[in-house]
Amino acid sequence: MDARQYASLPNPFPMWRGGVLHGARIAYETWGKLNTARDNAVLLFTGLSPPAHAASSEQDPDDGWWQGMVGPKLAIDTERFFVICVNSLGSCFGSTGPACSDPATGTPYRLSFPDLSIEDIARAGFETVRALGIARLDTVMGPSLGGMVVLAYAAMFPGSARRLLCISGTMAAAPFTIALRSIQREAITNDPAWADGNYDAAHPPATGQSLARKLGTITYRSAAEWQQRFGRDPIRADMKRGGPFRSEFAVQGYMESLAQRFVSAFDANCYLYLSRAMDRFDLAAHGEPVALFRAARLTQALVIGVQTDLLFSVDEQQAIADALKTAGVATRFAPLSCIEGHDAFLVDLKTFGAEIGAFLAN
Amino acid sequence: MDARQYASLPNPFPMWRGGVLHGARIAYETWGKLNTARDNAVLLFTGLSPPAHAASSEQDPDDGWWQGMVGPKLAIDTERFFVICVNSLGSCFGSTGPACSDPATGTPYRLSFPDLSIEDIARAGFETVRALGIARLDTVMGPSLGGMVVLAYAAMFPGSARRLLCISGTMAAAPFTIALRSIQREAITNDPAWADGNYDAAHPPATGQSLARKLGTITYRSAAEWQQRFGRDPIRADMKRGGPFRSEFAVQGYMESLAQRFVSAFDANCYLYLSRAMDRFDLAAHGEPVALFRAARLTQALVIGVQTDLLFSVDEQQAIADALKTAGVATRFAPLSCIEGHDAFLVDLKTFGAEIGAFLAN
Repeated sequence: MDARQYASLPNPFPMWRGGVLHGARIAYETWGKLNTARDNAVLLFTGLSPPAHAASSEQDPDDGWWQGMVGPKLAIDTERFFVICVNSLGSCFGSTGPACSDPATGTPYRLSFPDLSIEDIARAGFETVRALGIARLDTVMGPSLGGMVVLAYAAMFPGSARRLLCISGTMAAAPFTIALRSIQREAITNDPAWADGNYDAAHPPATGQSLARKLGTITYRSAAEWQQRFGRDPIRADMKRGGPFRSEFAVQGYMESLAQRFVSAFDANCYLYLSRAMDRFDLAAHGEPVALFRAARLTQALVIGVQTDLLFSVDEQQAIADALKTAGVATRFAPLSCIEGHDAFLVDLKTFGAEIGAFLAN
Repeated sequence: MDARQYASLPNPFPMWRGGVLHGARIAYETWGKLNTARDNAVLLFTGLSPPAHAASSEQDPDDGWWQGMVGPKLAIDTERFFVICVNSLGSCFGSTGPACSDPATGTPYRLSFPDLSIEDIARAGFETVRALGIARLDTVMGPSLGGMVVLAYAAMFPGSARRLLCISGTMAAAPFTIALRSIQREAITNDPAWADGNYDAAHPPATGQSLARKLGTITYRSAAEWQQRFGRDPIRADMKRGGPFRSEFAVQGYMESLAQRFVSAFDANCYLYLSRAMDRFDLAAHGEPVALFRAARLTQALVIGVQTDLLFSVDEQQAIADALKTAGVATRFAPLSCIEGHDAFLVDLKTFGAEIGAFLAN
């Protein structure tokens, strides 16, 4: 039950900060049909950790990470659009990344994988689209890390998309988020099991990864949501763990279960590469944002932010929308009041679906 | 150059959640003079980590943690008030805590120290005041953890203070802050050097403590402040450290230097005890807050919160002020717009000083 397809990247594939990949590939899934004019394609980039499986399909009926958003008559309507979701370059769900075997040595790249940038993820998506014979996208879109990627995409490949949809992204990583991500990476690299990246896949740096994911969980949500959801409820007895200083409250059990899932699913080195790529992203490296957006030849844009987002502030979304407007792009800015923080796009499908559906149907 | 004095606690000293301490003491400092009516005393509790040294004095001319706030003609005017600042029970700057020697064994308590609660810190402060021959305080005050303590103080010792001043505290730890603190504790207890609390003072769990402090630093400030202060400036070359995944930006150097100071100054087990005490605090354990505040026989209260505080939300300050008002206490609620987040009381002395000075002068 696997709906993934694979696109071969140009060989060699040059990386934005130096180095090349040989024999690299991108895993992607698609929904809907490409029309004969080849002008109904929507390219979807993901956040830091999801795979290309955004929604169920005949080939893979399991729920996807944006189940309820992508499908027939849904906000991203697969009766009208040909939707492509890519697993990011550098990730570990089928696309080439640090956990993959280096064809030059036959062993995993690990830390010999070249520096990864948001720009490389954008280019890998662009090459995937080109491999599908699509010259111009209807829409390039993505949330979170994917929101950074769509901005890089527009800057690097002018004219390659008619419309842009950016959700809770940013034009440049803010010091507050750099600080948070650097702690998450430190939790992993501090873990003796990380072994300078040379851990065995069966013995990952689980302690550090768990801590990193727990901190992620906190920053993806909001204090107000957790007050409603958990309050000061005690932890379920079977979820208690740790010594005298841990696990008394329900919220701790919630964080623990998400952390366990993450440790078993995501490669630590891939996480480190993707996390650092986010820190380093600064659209200004490509030029002045308004000039970039003007050159991108976009006709329309939708920028969505969430008031309770701790990680990608609503002010940063406003700045993206302002730059697009100044560049002459017909832009709607939607600052949403969802209580779920950064993760609202995954949870409040009704509010997000209304915005996204109205934009795409336009 | 040490201005500390010591108050012996009643022997045995019963702890709120069970257990007793023998021969326990509290380190405190004072500024100003107790008047003959003995009615001009201000008791100041600290946040999680400061010592009793709030301000310089003849005996100890070093700057204190609230230098510029406590002194002659300052907001907490030592020409008028007799100010007492206590090092919290359970801390490590002279008061009895897990790092002290257990008189029963002659070795450090470490994890054999009984459960510590906010209530124990309040009672230890109360006993210190009693030892000084003061029957009723003019004002009991404190920020952060100290803000929790003053609420417990009012509830536990009705009539023991005329006025209450609570800064960025809470009536009950919120799940968002419980989550953050539990990650900080986990960073320490995950560190092999912690050794179930049995580390040698010369070999503390520095890696875990450093991570815990860095996360603290993030939550004590605000994204907006760091954007202004650090932006995307690179780290100073001599501050770079760690492997390929760390330390590229100035904000990381700032966190690192604060973390190093913390590791060398604060005992890890004391931190764990104090952190857990914060999670567990719930004023409702003493009764309904309005009834408690009514019974406390307060005449006036000032509650200060900061709009950008991630840790103790301004809504929580509003709730404290509302309960005090409903209880008939003449209460001013000051929701400040400082950009410095939870730590604003340490940084924006002008804005805080104006509020505190006006209240105390009243």
